[in-house]
Amino acid sequence: MAPELEKFGEQVRQLRKALGLSQEDLAELTDLHRTYIGGIERGERNVALINIVRLAKALNVSPSELLKGIE
Amino acid sequence: MAPELEKFGEQVRQLRKALGLSQEDLAELTDLHRTYIGGIERGERNVALINIVRLAKALNVSPSELLKGIE
Repeated sequence: MAPELEKFGEQVRQLRKALGLSQEDLAELTDLHRTYIGGIERGERNVALINIVRLAKALNVSPSELLKGIE
Repeated sequence: MAPELEKFGEQVRQLRKALGLSQEDLAELTDLHRTYIGGIERGERNVALINIVRLAKALNVSPSELLKGIE
């Protein structure tokens, strides 16, 4: 698996939990499917920019912040 | 066109030019096709995370920095 995708997934999961959201909550907020959110958090999805922006909005961070620590 | 993709494309173009690179140079550095680089810079491509990371590396910035200002 790609380490940048794993790192991204970890960050999404961490921020989601910090907000007390379930994967279903985040799915609803982003209009993405719950299983897709699960795949993202497991680092299995090569998320594209439009969805990165959508996730960032739902998680109350900027897209730039969402990518912090990814190299 | 999606404003986040346009903004991203502008940033890629700006950083590329600041480094004195042609689209062909950047294509070679990233192992992406020159026409794909052109599409990115015009905001026509919904670039996925692995390619965002690849572009950032070639442009000597972090992926996070490459997304600065995108909302």
